[in-house]
Amino acid sequence: MSVAAQVVKKFINDPETVVPEALAGVAAAHPGLVRVDLEKQLVLRADAPVAGKVGLVSGGGSGHEPLHGGFVGAGMLDAACAGAVFTSPVPDQMAAATKEVDGGAGVVHIVKNYTGDVLNFKMAAELAEDEGIQVEVVVIDDDVAVQDSLYTAGRRGVGATVLAEKLAGARAEQGGSLTDVAGVVRAVNERTRSFGVALTSCATPASGTRIFDLGADEIEVGVGIHGEPGRRREKHAPAREIVEMMLEPILDDLQPAQGSSVLAFVNGLGGTPLLELYLLFNEVNGQLADRGITVGRSLVGNYITSLEMAGASITLLQLDDELARLWDAPVKTAALRWGV
Amino acid sequence: MSVAAQVVKKFINDPETVVPEALAGVAAAHPGLVRVDLEKQLVLRADAPVAGKVGLVSGGGSGHEPLHGGFVGAGMLDAACAGAVFTSPVPDQMAAATKEVDGGAGVVHIVKNYTGDVLNFKMAAELAEDEGIQVEVVVIDDDVAVQDSLYTAGRRGVGATVLAEKLAGARAEQGGSLTDVAGVVRAVNERTRSFGVALTSCATPASGTRIFDLGADEIEVGVGIHGEPGRRREKHAPAREIVEMMLEPILDDLQPAQGSSVLAFVNGLGGTPLLELYLLFNEVNGQLADRGITVGRSLVGNYITSLEMAGASITLLQLDDELARLWDAPVKTAALRWGV
Repeated sequence: MSVAAQVVKKFINDPETVVPEALAGVAAAHPGLVRVDLEKQLVLRADAPVAGKVGLVSGGGSGHEPLHGGFVGAGMLDAACAGAVFTSPVPDQMAAATKEVDGGAGVVHIVKNYTGDVLNFKMAAELAEDEGIQVEVVVIDDDVAVQDSLYTAGRRGVGATVLAEKLAGARAEQGGSLTDVAGVVRAVNERTRSFGVALTSCATPASGTRIFDLGADEIEVGVGIHGEPGRRREKHAPAREIVEMMLEPILDDLQPAQGSSVLAFVNGLGGTPLLELYLLFNEVNGQLADRGITVGRSLVGNYITSLEMAGASITLLQLDDELARLWDAPVKTAALRWGV
Repeated sequence: MSVAAQVVKKFINDPETVVPEALAGVAAAHPGLVRVDLEKQLVLRADAPVAGKVGLVSGGGSGHEPLHGGFVGAGMLDAACAGAVFTSPVPDQMAAATKEVDGGAGVVHIVKNYTGDVLNFKMAAELAEDEGIQVEVVVIDDDVAVQDSLYTAGRRGVGATVLAEKLAGARAEQGGSLTDVAGVVRAVNERTRSFGVALTSCATPASGTRIFDLGADEIEVGVGIHGEPGRRREKHAPAREIVEMMLEPILDDLQPAQGSSVLAFVNGLGGTPLLELYLLFNEVNGQLADRGITVGRSLVGNYITSLEMAGASITLLQLDDELARLWDAPVKTAALRWGV
């Protein structure tokens, strides 16, 4: 493949200002829903802090939209901290967000397991606690593809983050205590596993060229959301076989009982058409049915992306009645909305 | 660029069965919302026909998802007919859909202006009328980029279709007559203009290779949603300049008065990250403000796509109080949902 083919054109003005310009767009597009602190790069629930409610703060590098800013609103996050593309936000941002959303009942930090994010959120929690705010930090590490990775000790945090934000957000909205809400995040993480496959790489605005090369007949099995390598490269294969490759390690690890009900989340990594995501969901649904597992709830679309990477991830959450109820509870954010 | 670089990998089993497999996925993912006739390739509102309500039917070639199947539900479409990728559905599908959703108050067909779609919907309307169903066919042609195109006599129908489906769907839900509902579609079409730009081509599942070639520093200005050529090729440019290139022909044609309020819709063509779409929206918002035009409502995301094409379109609708009210009315579909 020629070098020229590796260039990825983008709609940007200046690689340095992509994130603040996009955040200004978020502010202009969703004025009733969120307010944006452009200086600190925070997306905040418009009515934060909500008195008496446990606050939920998440964040991470940009380039995974709608995660996290698209999930700020009633029934989900109170604040999202945006870092530069694929770069953790800093503790000051997280501490400022924590202070802004604290309604007196404490704040939960939902943190994807990447070394920088974990360190910075822990430091932010200490800063906030110094100011008398109770903080619980919960780390998400649902990606069964690899143990340790380019930016991670242990498993990476991926799709479970979206589900934890929704489910814990519902519990907070319903008046759950700090312990309750953090407990939902932990329960979701324990009951959820994910696996991703890339068909192409992506390119950061700063470099403008693809992070890695994949041949015209190759796929990256177990890819991370920053283009981190997966388990192996394989020849491209029919969707049926790719879904088998993804479900097998998830189910090996999750070990759901026959007759279990799961939330099946088929997520696009950014550059894959929705047509293909629904086709993948159909495979997931069929292959789970063959194993005696029911899809009780589902989510299909681009929710945790890797810029324009073509690819998809599958996330399975073992449901119980309480988690199903929390899933169905109203949510009002830019990217997930129902019941209001 | 090498030939190998033109291959686009996809998550499919067989190019022949992409659409029915994806529709089966839609059925499995949204059981309470829609039912899917897999044989006829129809996505139908779960509770259709709604007695006494005007029915809304749209459809077209697949590959533009979530258009149209993602817009089926209360407050929007009653049925969507899916053709093969980039190929019009046939009159039998449209006639069957019309019959399924007729609640006794007549049915409106919302048709994007492509030669095959227009012919087939007109034939379907005749078939339905032969069975005693009143049908109004309204053609959408909002794309100011080109007059006549590869598959179109006159202007192409693009982003206005999404807005017409939402706004006319709201009027139908509120008890509007056949004349009222068709009138909303016509008013939306008259008050709306669009323009698209591509950074890359896309590939149909059947061919697996890109429809057209664009150099690493080229963009297609005025592109259609099937990869049809636009007005011209240009050197790639900063987002600010690209938005100027898009807004100028829209505003020249729409001629909104100073002080007007518009609905600004920044649409991704499939392969462009949401981060960039919000950055584009920020540009649109700023450049309109500079011209004394207010963005009263907005929509940002992938709603009418061209498979994995990287690119975006801008659609502006001149609002009035009634259209703003219809926009805010509840809608419950897979891809657009609020108020319920």
